[in-house]
Amino acid sequence: MNSFFWFRLLHCHETLIDRNIVPLARLFYNSHRYKQVESSSEKDLSYRLKRKGHFGKKNRERISTYLYNMASPEIEKELAPLRAAVKEYGDLIRSLKEKDAPKTDVDRAVVELKARKKKLEERELALVPKNVSFFDRLKFEDLLKQRFFYDKSFAIYGGVAGLYDFGPMGCAMKANMINLWRNHFILEENMLEVDCSVLTPEAVLKASGHVDRFSDWMVKDLKTGECFRADHLIKNFAEKMCKDMKTPANVKDELKEVLMKLEGFNDADMHSVIVKHNIKSPITGNELSEPIAFNLMFPTVIGPTGDFKAYLRPETAQGIFVNFKRLLEFNQGKLPFAVAQIGSGFRNEISPRQGLIRLREFTMCEIEHFVDPNNKSHPKFELVKDYNLVLFTGCNQMDGMQAQTMSIGDAVAQKLVANETLGYYMVRVHKYLVRIGVDPQRLRFRQHMANEMAHYSCDCWDAEILTSCGWIECVGVADRACYDLVQHSKASGEKLVAEKVLSEPKIVQVVEAVPNKAAIGKIYKAEAKQILAKLEQLSAEEVEALEKQIISVGSTRLQYGNKEVELQKDHITVKRYEKKVYAEEFHPSVIEPSFGIGRIMYSVLEHSFRQREGDEQRLYFALRPIVAPIKCSILPISANLRFEPIMAAVRSELAKFSVSYRQDDSSGSLGRRYARTDAIGIPFGITIDFESEAEPWTVTLRYSITMEQIRLKVSDVGKTVADLSSEIMSWTEAQQTYPKFEQKSDS
Amino acid sequence: MNSFFWFRLLHCHETLIDRNIVPLARLFYNSHRYKQVESSSEKDLSYRLKRKGHFGKKNRERISTYLYNMASPEIEKELAPLRAAVKEYGDLIRSLKEKDAPKTDVDRAVVELKARKKKLEERELALVPKNVSFFDRLKFEDLLKQRFFYDKSFAIYGGVAGLYDFGPMGCAMKANMINLWRNHFILEENMLEVDCSVLTPEAVLKASGHVDRFSDWMVKDLKTGECFRADHLIKNFAEKMCKDMKTPANVKDELKEVLMKLEGFNDADMHSVIVKHNIKSPITGNELSEPIAFNLMFPTVIGPTGDFKAYLRPETAQGIFVNFKRLLEFNQGKLPFAVAQIGSGFRNEISPRQGLIRLREFTMCEIEHFVDPNNKSHPKFELVKDYNLVLFTGCNQMDGMQAQTMSIGDAVAQKLVANETLGYYMVRVHKYLVRIGVDPQRLRFRQHMANEMAHYSCDCWDAEILTSCGWIECVGVADRACYDLVQHSKASGEKLVAEKVLSEPKIVQVVEAVPNKAAIGKIYKAEAKQILAKLEQLSAEEVEALEKQIISVGSTRLQYGNKEVELQKDHITVKRYEKKVYAEEFHPSVIEPSFGIGRIMYSVLEHSFRQREGDEQRLYFALRPIVAPIKCSILPISANLRFEPIMAAVRSELAKFSVSYRQDDSSGSLGRRYARTDAIGIPFGITIDFESEAEPWTVTLRYSITMEQIRLKVSDVGKTVADLSSEIMSWTEAQQTYPKFEQKSDS
Repeated sequence: MNSFFWFRLLHCHETLIDRNIVPLARLFYNSHRYKQVESSSEKDLSYRLKRKGHFGKKNRERISTYLYNMASPEIEKELAPLRAAVKEYGDLIRSLKEKDAPKTDVDRAVVELKARKKKLEERELALVPKNVSFFDRLKFEDLLKQRFFYDKSFAIYGGVAGLYDFGPMGCAMKANMINLWRNHFILEENMLEVDCSVLTPEAVLKASGHVDRFSDWMVKDLKTGECFRADHLIKNFAEKMCKDMKTPANVKDELKEVLMKLEGFNDADMHSVIVKHNIKSPITGNELSEPIAFNLMFPTVIGPTGDFKAYLRPETAQGIFVNFKRLLEFNQGKLPFAVAQIGSGFRNEISPRQGLIRLREFTMCEIEHFVDPNNKSHPKFELVKDYNLVLFTGCNQMDGMQAQTMSIGDAVAQKLVANETLGYYMVRVHKYLVRIGVDPQRLRFRQHMANEMAHYSCDCWDAEILTSCGWIECVGVADRACYDLVQHSKASGEKLVAEKVLSEPKIVQVVEAVPNKAAIGKIYKAEAKQILAKLEQLSAEEVEALEKQIISVGSTRLQYGNKEVELQKDHITVKRYEKKVYAEEFHPSVIEPSFGIGRIMYSVLEHSFRQREGDEQRLYFALRPIVAPIKCSILPISANLRFEPIMAAVRSELAKFSVSYRQDDSSGSLGRRYARTDAIGIPFGITIDFESEAEPWTVTLRYSITMEQIRLKVSDVGKTVADLSSEIMSWTEAQQTYPKFEQKSDS
Repeated sequence: MNSFFWFRLLHCHETLIDRNIVPLARLFYNSHRYKQVESSSEKDLSYRLKRKGHFGKKNRERISTYLYNMASPEIEKELAPLRAAVKEYGDLIRSLKEKDAPKTDVDRAVVELKARKKKLEERELALVPKNVSFFDRLKFEDLLKQRFFYDKSFAIYGGVAGLYDFGPMGCAMKANMINLWRNHFILEENMLEVDCSVLTPEAVLKASGHVDRFSDWMVKDLKTGECFRADHLIKNFAEKMCKDMKTPANVKDELKEVLMKLEGFNDADMHSVIVKHNIKSPITGNELSEPIAFNLMFPTVIGPTGDFKAYLRPETAQGIFVNFKRLLEFNQGKLPFAVAQIGSGFRNEISPRQGLIRLREFTMCEIEHFVDPNNKSHPKFELVKDYNLVLFTGCNQMDGMQAQTMSIGDAVAQKLVANETLGYYMVRVHKYLVRIGVDPQRLRFRQHMANEMAHYSCDCWDAEILTSCGWIECVGVADRACYDLVQHSKASGEKLVAEKVLSEPKIVQVVEAVPNKAAIGKIYKAEAKQILAKLEQLSAEEVEALEKQIISVGSTRLQYGNKEVELQKDHITVKRYEKKVYAEEFHPSVIEPSFGIGRIMYSVLEHSFRQREGDEQRLYFALRPIVAPIKCSILPISANLRFEPIMAAVRSELAKFSVSYRQDDSSGSLGRRYARTDAIGIPFGITIDFESEAEPWTVTLRYSITMEQIRLKVSDVGKTVADLSSEIMSWTEAQQTYPKFEQKSDS
């Protein structure tokens, strides 16, 4: 259990204690990031909401306003007992911790706390009146598929679960999101960008903990060998039983209890549920194995011999850590600095569903911000301190309270958010998400509770976005402390440290094992280099232990890597001396914002899905111009050759400003063609009509969201659409510059 | 053997024959693309040149001018016998083909032809006087490593051959190259961009031919199991022996012969060399196995059961082919259209060396241009027809002639280049390469000879760039005909065709197997769908064959996918009728330009590597501003706090225009800091000096290539550097706008 986290829970109203003095050593293990960080609400709300078709469309604004106004007296009255039930356990946990109660007691209480939280959250969402919350997922997914935003990979071969191809629309939108990300983070924050290998040798991922711990529990059909993710299997079974009229009430209650607590279950817990309820393979009815850990990395081998094991990277972060030394050098040895990477990650999910939300191959954007562990302030924090975020703190969650709006300055001052750097990134993440089109009313930061935290993390806030699948974790902002650098230092024997000049020099006692290089070289030959490196790395205590052994038994054993050698008396001399040091070495801490591009894209698409007032069939995406896959359409009012010279002039104007366009000169009414371009989220439409031919040539420009139009010269159209697309100019500004065009009709 | 190619060779001086009538069916197999397409010169020149340190630096211009002027009488005199020797075999092959000689005879002659070509090319390069061709590869590689353009992946763990990480400089440069690629191709040519999965099921790559044929020959140490690429092993052995004074002259001659012909060797050829010269493992001296085929794809498995085999894609192209149907629909059913993809490819090379030139993981940019096989004209060809390219045609190669400069219009008119679309792309490729900084004097297009062509290709031109490793193939422009779409149609059962309206409707005789759906469904249940689909796909001949069987024996067997069913008499009825059809279906041809970004980047870096006149230590990269990783530096003349407000104003001006910069306010002379920024290819340097403080604030702007400076207002600096960086404005234009600044000294 991470004592740092508990420290915060216990003292979350005491703001004056310096948090940096708390030891970060005992990092709590948890299977892996993405899996853990899902809010409890997400998992079992998704199925419920899918059926009910919750949220969005017609009254999109109202739902989020509604959630904000939940504190209205009537609703609060209904929620009060549930809030109290959560708080009861929050208080219990605090007192258990104060009394230093056994870890198992605390863990059990946490599981119960989370179950109560889940009940509260479900009730909150259920209180949304049915008529304000309708989202037609079928129509939404249909439109995405039809217009090839994205779809299952290798569909003509039956498709592969968890793999998606982005078609022209999805690909362009993704490229725009990534470009904006690069500007917003790498350029504006002067980060170093790197691009590292996907293929990763086993040794690297052994050091990072992924080989041993990056896994999910699965059960196997004992006859066919078919595999199921254990928690999903139990969930599906329990849901089905709860719906079944024939299930006795007491069993239903028991299974509801299981559903509430499932997220906290380990293998033994799950096995006992499977045994107790006699759960069989849902496909064959055969017996199932006990839960077994299944590593989620894709294995492969490098080279022809077959014995160089490797994996596809499960995150891009490791590529940055192993390059730390070069990057620090590149930054002229100075801290802090941030390194970013955009690239693919791979996770061999046992049975992925949920489209872009759970993929086996996905695009990540990750930042590793290296910082002095004793000084996590940020030079630009002052500039953002008044920025408001919706924070769902660990305390709020334990007390059964709602998320609260708060300035980041206050949150850091009150130690709710661990440090300025974490806080600064939370603001930057928020700005980015809103800029690309996430509805700020459906965006919150939720702090991880202790048993959700990944094995390397000591504080973590997730940017969660509310979609029809519930709250989805889309960005994690974690303080990974120095976990990774320390692990790679140990495993590789390479020092991954920064240096800090001391305010005044200090005298240190050095105890050093000076090797007899000739003797060691003679015996160990090629191995000698590694042995010497290891000797150099030994701490004073370790050297003294070696010395003791040599004195007592005449030789000692030295471990390096996976190997061991025997060193004789004449192989080393122990030297003691005083040294004046002016600088000290330390492992930097890492603050890591990590973005799942697919999930964010899904959320943006859902938040932009619209229907024209009064016309159920006219569905479209109201995308921000800056992320829209194509910036404008070119539509001649009729398929007439006489328009070709004007269209050519328009195309060349657009090309001059690198504006992407789609020309639709097919037959069909203008209104129908508008509808077609609206459906792929094209924000601006250029129409050539009969008035266009009068010198100087003009065209009309239509904004898809409002359907308003202006008229402007062909020679102005490139720059205007470019400025509108990059959002240097707003539509309102364009309307002030150019005369309005009253269209005859939009159909 | 590809009859199309031979057709061209036989008739390469006859220009009036319509090439489209030649059947494309019998596509010749060749192991795989990148491997084959290396020019023969590349392979064995690389070692020679590495040692001699050929090409570049001081007199970079002269070497290419030199190569161009090789036709000078003295040199031509020396080359004449070698050219004649090549031509002799070129003529021989033509006459063999005319006489319909056995394929083995032709193949043998081709091997000899290539050996003679290689001898000629080596002589050509050797004739470059030593003093004009010096390229210091060590210094070049050192600078790249030191400034972290790129370096071995996982270096702290010892590194992995064939895997490289791009550091901040390399990554930014790569991103710029790709952005430009996207503008130059996707945007300007209105292509559809897609982004498909790397993980690819075995069935897909089985259909594409990669599972069976994408391999290299390797030999194993019979005791240790260590593997060597057979051709590399022989090459290294032969080279070593040839250098050895003790090797008898006749053996040397024999081995030189082997080196010349090695590229054309199959497994038996290589085995006989190994046996004859008693070649052993170079590491242990143990016996070696016979050459065995090693598939170059990285294998993995998807999902937990371990029986869903998959590979990492060896090229991005397949992702486009399997999405053909959706893409055609997206394009409203119209041909031609082009689809592009930018992404990673993976090849498990047996023993990669050569840095970025042979990688196990690499970035590709590929375009698949789908076109009617009977009309490969291009609407924009007219615009480029006068563009000159250096073409090294198959005929030139067979005749021992030099590459020749020719307009693409003439080349297509003379049928040297197969069609307008191929020619149009060659021009676009050339423009792109020159735009990003490839020296046009070291760039040529070489046509593939028949036995180099990949198994799917019917005509191919490589853009080859001359570097210190010889001519490197960086872009392949291939006509893949309809190979891939046909293969995937067959394997998936999905029709991957386009439709063409006939000029007049025609009457066709239909013979159809009408299934008894109820009966088939009852017996075959879930399988029924596939059976019905297969029945629908049968040709008239196949239906008649089934019918015959049913009549004679009462039942028939139908194969679908890997399975087979028995159909009884009452399962199908054969129906015959006439049908008037207005359109016909066909498999489109594909023209594919395929870019290896790593190789191109390497070439650009080599072509930009410079040394300051008179100062051997001042090495730098003269990169085009548009690809430069960082656009400008900010250098205060001294580390003085009073400059901070001006620097802040400069930074904010730059940010306004999204210009990347690097600030260097470390101590050290200005000259030294300039040198540091020059070394990472920063084209523009902004200096704040004591004059800067006079209102309105000004700065100096320095261009790294010429070291000239101008002085301009801080308020102008953002727009100016942005325009210079995007090459909207040239340095000369900037000099005309702003006053010259005479610096005191650059050191």
